[in-house]
Amino acid sequence: MKFFKEYANWILTGIILALAAILVGALVFMKNQPPQERSFQPVVEIAALEPDSEKWGLNFPNQYATYLKTGENETDTEYGGSSAFSHLERDPRQALLFMGYPFSKDYNDDRGHEFALADVNATLRVNEATHATCYSCKSSDNPRMWDELGLQGYDAMLFSEMAPNMTETIGCANCHEAGTMRLVVTNPSLEIAFESLGVDWKTFTRQEMRTVVCANCHVEYYMVGDNKALTFPWENGTRIDQIIAYYNEIGFSDWTYPGAGTPTLKAQHPEFEFFTAGSTHYNAGVSCADCHMPYTRDGAMKFSSHNIHSPLLDPEAACGQCHTDVSYVTGRVNEIQDQVFLAKQATEDAILDAINAITLAAANPSNDPLGLDEARQLHRTAQFMWDFVSAENSMGFHNPEYALSILAEATNLARQAQMKAAHSVNDVTLLGVNYYYTLDPLPTPVP
Amino acid sequence: MKFFKEYANWILTGIILALAAILVGALVFMKNQPPQERSFQPVVEIAALEPDSEKWGLNFPNQYATYLKTGENETDTEYGGSSAFSHLERDPRQALLFMGYPFSKDYNDDRGHEFALADVNATLRVNEATHATCYSCKSSDNPRMWDELGLQGYDAMLFSEMAPNMTETIGCANCHEAGTMRLVVTNPSLEIAFESLGVDWKTFTRQEMRTVVCANCHVEYYMVGDNKALTFPWENGTRIDQIIAYYNEIGFSDWTYPGAGTPTLKAQHPEFEFFTAGSTHYNAGVSCADCHMPYTRDGAMKFSSHNIHSPLLDPEAACGQCHTDVSYVTGRVNEIQDQVFLAKQATEDAILDAINAITLAAANPSNDPLGLDEARQLHRTAQFMWDFVSAENSMGFHNPEYALSILAEATNLARQAQMKAAHSVNDVTLLGVNYYYTLDPLPTPVP
Repeated sequence: MKFFKEYANWILTGIILALAAILVGALVFMKNQPPQERSFQPVVEIAALEPDSEKWGLNFPNQYATYLKTGENETDTEYGGSSAFSHLERDPRQALLFMGYPFSKDYNDDRGHEFALADVNATLRVNEATHATCYSCKSSDNPRMWDELGLQGYDAMLFSEMAPNMTETIGCANCHEAGTMRLVVTNPSLEIAFESLGVDWKTFTRQEMRTVVCANCHVEYYMVGDNKALTFPWENGTRIDQIIAYYNEIGFSDWTYPGAGTPTLKAQHPEFEFFTAGSTHYNAGVSCADCHMPYTRDGAMKFSSHNIHSPLLDPEAACGQCHTDVSYVTGRVNEIQDQVFLAKQATEDAILDAINAITLAAANPSNDPLGLDEARQLHRTAQFMWDFVSAENSMGFHNPEYALSILAEATNLARQAQMKAAHSVNDVTLLGVNYYYTLDPLPTPVP
Repeated sequence: MKFFKEYANWILTGIILALAAILVGALVFMKNQPPQERSFQPVVEIAALEPDSEKWGLNFPNQYATYLKTGENETDTEYGGSSAFSHLERDPRQALLFMGYPFSKDYNDDRGHEFALADVNATLRVNEATHATCYSCKSSDNPRMWDELGLQGYDAMLFSEMAPNMTETIGCANCHEAGTMRLVVTNPSLEIAFESLGVDWKTFTRQEMRTVVCANCHVEYYMVGDNKALTFPWENGTRIDQIIAYYNEIGFSDWTYPGAGTPTLKAQHPEFEFFTAGSTHYNAGVSCADCHMPYTRDGAMKFSSHNIHSPLLDPEAACGQCHTDVSYVTGRVNEIQDQVFLAKQATEDAILDAINAITLAAANPSNDPLGLDEARQLHRTAQFMWDFVSAENSMGFHNPEYALSILAEATNLARQAQMKAAHSVNDVTLLGVNYYYTLDPLPTPVP
């Protein structure tokens, strides 16, 4: 006891210091933890494949409220953002690059998910022959319809026949399983594409699914057979060279370029393939949702914002999840996008020069058909490579080195196409550079 | 007193806790502070411009000991490192690209600073007519010699005349001021170049100087007038387009490409211009020394390693200063370098095709001289752009998007050069692609 009394002060101090240290350690530890998945008590039961997002919103008011904002914001960034500006007006070269294809008539930038159904119903790219396939990424009615009709049955219908079933725009059911709320592959084409790669998406972690659910739609695709079945060209893999090889193996083209006769490919919106091809953010374990649906707070409640949009519209919330120096990183994004934009424009000029040369060579009866076909193959590859970067919605930022490498090679191939065309008709006058700019007036897109 | 006795334990505990908190705070604060410049007690006094690094080493044994290691390590990385491998053997296209210029005879990779003097004395690029200018970056005798002779006097001498004065390789005096040890511009050409930009380097912070002292040597330069005065082409700025514009304005070329007749430029080692052109690391405030001379420890003593080499040879020390995930970031470096390497090879192929076409066109008496000159101008620009990336010692990593943007444009211009050449002689047979690979046997470099 004497011992205890004598050292009581020191023992007490020691205990308090130890407790303080544990407290500090615990606080530091908690600060570095990822947010936990929450269990939840549903207010209402949601039926499987329920298309009406408002019902899901009763259980998840924060997610639903932020989701509705995708129908309000139409703010632009320098190269994209949320308004439906016309790519054809902003860059008239694109009207020429898509000549003979519906994109030369109507090519507006994507708006938020809330607008998806209205925008597909309004696009001039749809006509009486268009299949229901074009609704695949536009409505939360789809999981239910795919379940009823199957992929082939759904895609076999005409767009106009399917229209009455499409009452809801993109919503909860496109990414979530009712009841468990887990993230799921809902597009049967994605399921099939993963199978062809020998991949079982059900083995993915939640963080991986925060990228994979975006691949329900944000991918390259084409339509197969009379049913126009939605198909992802991933059998060889998802890298651009593997996709090009696949299209060449099956001899697919979207349209034949008028005059030039090139069997041309239209790239869609290959965000998934582009981002996952070894980009710095993907390799670091960052998901699409980390930047486009950053964690936010409603009082004590932490949740993913469902106001999906460009991180540049709210960089503090998006980039600030990981980067403390937000103005620095957005400055970097701008610089990178400017560089990609310049390289992309140079590629467009080179492709237009190639198209011009091939068109004139094709019109020349004395052309060497083999040489001319080589020129068309080069044009086809160059244009798809360019479009893979151009149609991808990040002006290269999702994978900057990939974008610039692809554009460098596309320009090279376009110039080679031009040279082959000139060679095929023994005519050096086809070797003009930036032909497009020498025309006065600038050519009007042909419908 | 009663009060004091009753609460003595608590007061004591409070004081101890407060002191502990201050101690923890101070430790955290110190941990996050950049290393301080130390005042030091010199063991020996160092004379101004003292060339002998061993003397400086008495005051700074850690810095000196690590510096000596630059004379030991000859380990390579995938694309560079510390051995003197031959670029011409590794990539025979370079022997063709430098045809007619000494680099086609002898082009070895740089070794460590300790080897600098021995390697310049051994290179085949030096002959009887070579000026002392070529010693400018090879010896710590230089600050003293510049002080004695002035830039013009130094450069006016022949290499062989200067040789007896060059007893020391690169050393302390190339970057440090004796006495204060502050980092200083020692190369008078850099001083002049900064003046031409209206920049006073004495206003730079120490962290800025940890990049600027490297620009004493790691820059693009050329030699002016009969004295062969070392000059940096920075009057318009240090971006590649500004440097090209400068060389065009003054009509400078390093040599005339044999056969083709192109007034060609040789890029040197523009690490400074390349890194500072908006690279992600430079914009983030990182200096050359942060990665190439990372802070290290000798017991309690913290110092910059002077074993200057590729960060990839010791990534834990280099990248690990800022990045916790070292294997991830070195993986990214490798991926980026692979992409730049592929793009660079495509550019080389395009330039060789252009050279071939221009050479044949030049040999054709019926060529259109104006068209042919346009082809040469395009070749000149493409080759300098390629070399700016190729001669820069990082396989693009110092500024990846800049590297890929430059290469994309260089390939485009090289193809345009080829087309102009074909056009100038009305000969489509000059439009072959990858001409170099169709030759059997591969051409041997012409001395």
